[in-house]
Amino acid sequence: MKVCGVVAEYNPFHNGHLYHLQEAKKKTEAEVMIVAMSGNFLQRGEPAIVDKWDRASLALQHGADIVVEIPVAFSVQPADLYAKGAIELLHHLGIQVLSFGSESGEGSDFVQAATVYLEKEKEINDLFRKEQKQKLTYAKNMSDILSKHFPEFKLDLTEPNNMLGFAYARALKKYNSSIEIETILRKSSHYHDSDVIAGNEIASATAIRNLLFSEDKWDDHQTLPFPKETKEILNKSKHVNWDDYFPYLKYRILTTPHSELSRIYLMEQGLEYRVKEVIKESSNMNDFLSRLKTKQLSWTRLQRLSFYMLLNQSKVEMEKMTEGIEYIRVLGFNETGQKYLSQIKRHLKKPLITNINQKNNKLLAYDLMVGDVYRLADQNKIVSQDYKRKPLKIH
Amino acid sequence: MKVCGVVAEYNPFHNGHLYHLQEAKKKTEAEVMIVAMSGNFLQRGEPAIVDKWDRASLALQHGADIVVEIPVAFSVQPADLYAKGAIELLHHLGIQVLSFGSESGEGSDFVQAATVYLEKEKEINDLFRKEQKQKLTYAKNMSDILSKHFPEFKLDLTEPNNMLGFAYARALKKYNSSIEIETILRKSSHYHDSDVIAGNEIASATAIRNLLFSEDKWDDHQTLPFPKETKEILNKSKHVNWDDYFPYLKYRILTTPHSELSRIYLMEQGLEYRVKEVIKESSNMNDFLSRLKTKQLSWTRLQRLSFYMLLNQSKVEMEKMTEGIEYIRVLGFNETGQKYLSQIKRHLKKPLITNINQKNNKLLAYDLMVGDVYRLADQNKIVSQDYKRKPLKIH
Repeated sequence: MKVCGVVAEYNPFHNGHLYHLQEAKKKTEAEVMIVAMSGNFLQRGEPAIVDKWDRASLALQHGADIVVEIPVAFSVQPADLYAKGAIELLHHLGIQVLSFGSESGEGSDFVQAATVYLEKEKEINDLFRKEQKQKLTYAKNMSDILSKHFPEFKLDLTEPNNMLGFAYARALKKYNSSIEIETILRKSSHYHDSDVIAGNEIASATAIRNLLFSEDKWDDHQTLPFPKETKEILNKSKHVNWDDYFPYLKYRILTTPHSELSRIYLMEQGLEYRVKEVIKESSNMNDFLSRLKTKQLSWTRLQRLSFYMLLNQSKVEMEKMTEGIEYIRVLGFNETGQKYLSQIKRHLKKPLITNINQKNNKLLAYDLMVGDVYRLADQNKIVSQDYKRKPLKIH
Repeated sequence: MKVCGVVAEYNPFHNGHLYHLQEAKKKTEAEVMIVAMSGNFLQRGEPAIVDKWDRASLALQHGADIVVEIPVAFSVQPADLYAKGAIELLHHLGIQVLSFGSESGEGSDFVQAATVYLEKEKEINDLFRKEQKQKLTYAKNMSDILSKHFPEFKLDLTEPNNMLGFAYARALKKYNSSIEIETILRKSSHYHDSDVIAGNEIASATAIRNLLFSEDKWDDHQTLPFPKETKEILNKSKHVNWDDYFPYLKYRILTTPHSELSRIYLMEQGLEYRVKEVIKESSNMNDFLSRLKTKQLSWTRLQRLSFYMLLNQSKVEMEKMTEGIEYIRVLGFNETGQKYLSQIKRHLKKPLITNINQKNNKLLAYDLMVGDVYRLADQNKIVSQDYKRKPLKIH
């Protein structure tokens, strides 16, 4: 049986995601499509706009056969660790091909890029240290240096999906995996585009979220850039964003001494003093991050750091938790997916978790805590994320 | 110069407090009245309805010459530790007489009771263990046992102000202090009375708070049980209660593992498991404490425990902080008070803190943190509690 894996956040699920799932299935001729999806907190350090169950449901209604959750220890991470968790998860589930959207490049370009990079890693890092320009971003610097010294390296890493795809390819290579790569060219919208253009069928998730948090109403946009099921879910749900958690973050920082803040994952030496100073005057998340931002500290990195402060996760704990995938948490499936899971179940090297119980709740302690914290945005509208929840079954 | 000390919370300042200050000054013939007042969190484990500055201001307008703050390490404590902090503070400030309100008993009764108790402490504790009845409260048990075995013991400890006064008297005795005690009989209202009775000039602070959090409006009560200055402050202020902090408490408990909760001050062995279980279903403070309440755990004790969880204060830290008074924090004074303070300043054994600066902010770290947390109830209406605040000067 041909099985294709996809890594996604679906924040929220839109026509671009739909197109990708359809094209991936067509191009790979897969019989089973498995999505490894971030849960309630996402790669760039943000809460998901709607919870993982709603997002998994949308994926299952539009082409996914199984949705599994990337453990939160891997989901709020720089590209390399995010890729490590997602790819290891999909590897356990027996995928033969990985499909992702890219701004340019074929699967083979990504494989070659990963090969070059891993063979010359030390050399590349040395070159990077010597030749990087302060004014440029990490991605631009890396792209310039690689194309200058290694003409066989054909990826444009300044494109965000290429950067992520490159991380997936490296993760696959490290496994020495035989999993193939199939890329789908992204259609008519750019990852960072910030506006939904009326009449366009495709818009970036960023643009859709901006629309959701603006004053504009749905009806002003006749052609919505997402399926009607997404619209239904967005209409009934609380739209979560960082400001829902800002009071808790502020409280956490105010009540945590410097010595303990310095232990938090991603906290750079000395930054805890600025964090404690700056929080006093900050009244919302944008305000706080703007005051904290420097040339060296990207917005994304500060959002991730804020997440780890919110969850009080230390460097030591995170190091342990990111050693590898320890469980496979199933959020949902359809009949095809269910059949496939029961077929591979006995051969799995890690436990397949379909419901939380006394036996497994220590293993998933961090994910469960994150589910509880996610709910604090709206205890009534956001229901239990883990306890008493069973996988979705879509017919 | 005759100096009289008073221990108070003024939550809020009412006619009973006014009467006590006037009577105490008259009876003791004191030239200086010094009030040691709880700051923003109080003896029974609750936040003050209005902040310490407003409450100090009311005291200074109605008979106090100096108001100092009981460090929060002592203010949210059972009677013995509360008394230890307050009495030590007043002792440093050179009072010759302590005045408190009591339901019955003269000063000499309290002195004698303390003498009996401290001489026979071991014997009393043994009797207590043997003869206490499960159905009765600690106060009733203690009262019964003492009056049975020690007829010279004349205090009714089931009266809450007598219980506190007894703790003050014991704290004074432990010092071997020559400070005298002058009691003022409480007038026409009982500490625990829960209703303000229209037309009555005196009502308990509990009754006044109940009125404030009910739907009733001021104008319905023509004779208010507090001075017009209290009314003005209550009209303009946020009325703080535990529910303002409940979301933070819930978040704290959800994100703190059992092992760390067990380190919190006042946490009994095993209680951390019930705390973590019960918080999940609780939607407000009353709900949470009702679920947690047992015969052995009083509401007050659970409120204090909640405060220590909110502040993340461990047993080890609290033990250090309650060894003794390390500073004297001045909240305000009038001319008489200012003159007296400048006179005793050079002889003080502990630093007199009138403003927070780089030099003293480590010493007061815990009080400063509590001030920041208190503000979370309403960042706009509750202004900075410590930084950039100078003592009130009332003319």
